[in-house]
Amino acid sequence: MGQSALQTLFGDPFAVMNTIGLVAFALVGASKAIREEFDLFGITIVGLAMAFAGGATRDLLVTRIPLALQSPVEIGLGLLGVGLAVTLSIVLPTPDTHPVTVVSDAIGLAAFTTAGAIVATEAGVSAFGIVAIGTINAVGGGAFADILLDRPPFILFEDFYASCAVLGGIAYWLAGTVGVAEGTAAGVCAGVVVVTRLAAVTFSWNLPTVQTLRCSE
Amino acid sequence: MGQSALQTLFGDPFAVMNTIGLVAFALVGASKAIREEFDLFGITIVGLAMAFAGGATRDLLVTRIPLALQSPVEIGLGLLGVGLAVTLSIVLPTPDTHPVTVVSDAIGLAAFTTAGAIVATEAGVSAFGIVAIGTINAVGGGAFADILLDRPPFILFEDFYASCAVLGGIAYWLAGTVGVAEGTAAGVCAGVVVVTRLAAVTFSWNLPTVQTLRCSE
Amino acid sequence: MGQSALQTLFGDPFAVMNTIGLVAFALVGASKAIREEFDLFGITIVGLAMAFAGGATRDLLVTRIPLALQSPVEIGLGLLGVGLAVTLSIVLPTPDTHPVTVVSDAIGLAAFTTAGAIVATEAGVSAFGIVAIGTINAVGGGAFADILLDRPPFILFEDFYASCAVLGGIAYWLAGTVGVAEGTAAGVCAGVVVVTRLAAVTFSWNLPTVQTLRCSE
Repeated sequence: MGQSALQTLFGDPFAVMNTIGLVAFALVGASKAIREEFDLFGITIVGLAMAFAGGATRDLLVTRIPLALQSPVEIGLGLLGVGLAVTLSIVLPTPDTHPVTVVSDAIGLAAFTTAGAIVATEAGVSAFGIVAIGTINAVGGGAFADILLDRPPFILFEDFYASCAVLGGIAYWLAGTVGVAEGTAAGVCAGVVVVTRLAAVTFSWNLPTVQTLRCSE
Repeated sequence: MGQSALQTLFGDPFAVMNTIGLVAFALVGASKAIREEFDLFGITIVGLAMAFAGGATRDLLVTRIPLALQSPVEIGLGLLGVGLAVTLSIVLPTPDTHPVTVVSDAIGLAAFTTAGAIVATEAGVSAFGIVAIGTINAVGGGAFADILLDRPPFILFEDFYASCAVLGGIAYWLAGTVGVAEGTAAGVCAGVVVVTRLAAVTFSWNLPTVQTLRCSE
Repeated sequence: MGQSALQTLFGDPFAVMNTIGLVAFALVGASKAIREEFDLFGITIVGLAMAFAGGATRDLLVTRIPLALQSPVEIGLGLLGVGLAVTLSIVLPTPDTHPVTVVSDAIGLAAFTTAGAIVATEAGVSAFGIVAIGTINAVGGGAFADILLDRPPFILFEDFYASCAVLGGIAYWLAGTVGVAEGTAAGVCAGVVVVTRLAAVTFSWNLPTVQTLRCSE
């Protein structure tokens, strides 16, 4: 990557977040497929699907051709994440539940929430649209990977996962409303998602069910 | 809602059908999630997903940004339906199979078939396109909710469910072909769907399988 | 079909491939639904879904209204495939695993890979985009049919299925890069997919898993 590409990267919050998210989620998706004993082709497909599905859905929702189909850089970043996962799987005993994978997942969640919120804001959608597109960008890849792995995607709702993306999207919208610069809003959004997600994993946070409410009456 | 908003509502068949469908399907989706003991966040997500998935798919098929991401009113209507479901679940013993939910489902099916047929007609697609987009608008939300709930969406085909939307779409197209006004065509379409759906539930209608045809030879 | 329609067909590689793919995949999808004892409506829906889902996804990815919703010819071809499947199911004992269905599936896979690669090339996406859209066009219908049938779509990755579409997409892109005419590139692509797919079925090809790599160290 030349100097001008680096300048573009650091001056463009979307490019930073998208790059981080692609590598992190490709690693997580490929690790899941490795645990399920998929072949190398399947591992690559699940890794790339987890990296690209959220962003492709985001792009379709704002009616543009998915970035992943237009830029050769994106596929390279996805393959880098898959390669990292394969390397980790040879070194570590249980790569899919290892802290490296759990932290990668939180980082990918934060990066893609932010990338989605930035694209949504540029497309001029409503406040709900910003939060929804940020959340879909963040959780779409994991949900699609779960479908490919034949696991119920609603596990996303069992713990504090999509909720973190929703909070991040709200933070991004609030930051934009009070007039903060795009780069700062991006940092706030990513920070909220990573901190709430890692706290939820560490302290096993849960939300109440209607059954809980009914019992306590 | 001010007087001019009310005038818009009654003068605009799409707005009427879309409003009814959003509240009805959010109620049904949230009721399904309550039965599965989802947490409050999951209930809200499944309710909103059932309300918005069909219309979002419709909008993508005619290549426009989903209405739900542009209008803050839509999310409010979805949350109203979720709130009704939570209230019902505290009052009723089995909210997801209660007549209130079954009738809400039939009304939502009818309203969204009509909303889809109106948008498809405006987009200038073929007769098949009108029926297909009406049906997708109507059954897409329920199918997506079933996927989130880890239930097979083909239950849509087990009884006379999607068939009702197909009949409604054909009725809308026929009404348009013979020169009826949009509002009347919308009423005919919604009426056909509600009546056939409630009749199918009441009389347990079924379509023949190939195995039936083979046996009777 | 009049003479000018035939001329259009033979002078337009996309139309040829799309026509073949629609009939072949509708036959395969309907055969799967017949095995699962779906009713006639369900059989038609699964057949049409298998025929249209890949192409509709392709059209959404290049942001145009799906062809299937605009052209009445497409639905006719899909219904023809469904009719063939119902006829076969009365004649043959196990239509879904019969060589006729297996070969139809390979032909549909080849035809839709080629149709997708042609549309992607016209949309001006990257080399990865051509391979990805060709593969999605080819495997999207089968994956969607599996979801409707409540079977895990990752069976697509268990044997050499999607891999054949990837190889075909690469062949199409290579042929285009060396300056071959569109019709020739289409023939090369379709040939690569059919030959590798039928060889994989005949010789039970498999790709290595990471576990295999780990054991052999």
